Amino acid sequence: MEEEAKMVGAAFVDHYYHLFDHDRAAVVSLYHPTSMLTFEGQKMQGGDQISAKLNQLPFDQCLHVISTVDSQPSAFAGGVIVFVSGSLRLHEEEHPLRFSQMFHLVPTGEGSYFVQNDIFRLNYG
Amino acid sequence: MEEEAKMVGAAFVDHYYHLFDHDRAAVVSLYHPTSMLTFEGQKMQGGDQISAKLNQLPFDQCLHVISTVDSQPSAFAGGVIVFVSGSLRLHEEEHPLRFSQMFHLVPTGEGSYFVQNDIFRLNYG
Repeated sequence: MEEEAKMVGAAFVDHYYHLFDHDRAAVVSLYHPTSMLTFEGQKMQGGDQISAKLNQLPFDQCLHVISTVDSQPSAFAGGVIVFVSGSLRLHEEEHPLRFSQMFHLVPTGEGSYFVQNDIFRLNYG
Repeated sequence: MEEEAKMVGAAFVDHYYHLFDHDRAAVVSLYHPTSMLTFEGQKMQGGDQISAKLNQLPFDQCLHVISTVDSQPSAFAGGVIVFVSGSLRLHEEEHPLRFSQMFHLVPTGEGSYFVQNDIFRLNYG
């Protein structure tokens, strides 16, 4: 159960940030109508709101460099909690921005997962 | 639902860190045998292991100063996900340590919550 959570978390993190950095408009496929995103304190719910937020961020090109990934099975049957720390490199910025982000992944019932909960914060020093 | 999650998260954060900073041995009361803690990548499960870890941290007096608290209802009935950022001030250290921590709170069925998932990371950089 713990090993499975670790594998799911690692695979998700690879997939999520690769998609975000190379085809951001496609990230919406990982969210469902019940999904929640809190981005720097701002709350969105559902694929449309979340997609609008992610695609309107004030930068085009970016690269997420991941430092740590911690995963645990959640209390929800088959769910996985993933906690990520890393840095976000923007094309036009010299200094990367440190961030922390957590996801609660819930099985779709079709062998994959969607993001039920997503909370993102920049780390200020 | 969202407002309730916000209230639960805020009350929990106040309670948890006050207890941690003033009576650390009592924090164990917030965990159950199924609870999981990942502390700087090290995994513990159940009140005994979690309590041992928290009480063996290499500092006695500490003060958590909270910067942000983001809460969302989880997919688990009545559960609340809480994401915290802040700094940890140690008695013997001049510079506070920045940290991020997330909790998944699950109802006990008796009107309160226990910590099912807890992931802690110091923020470096």
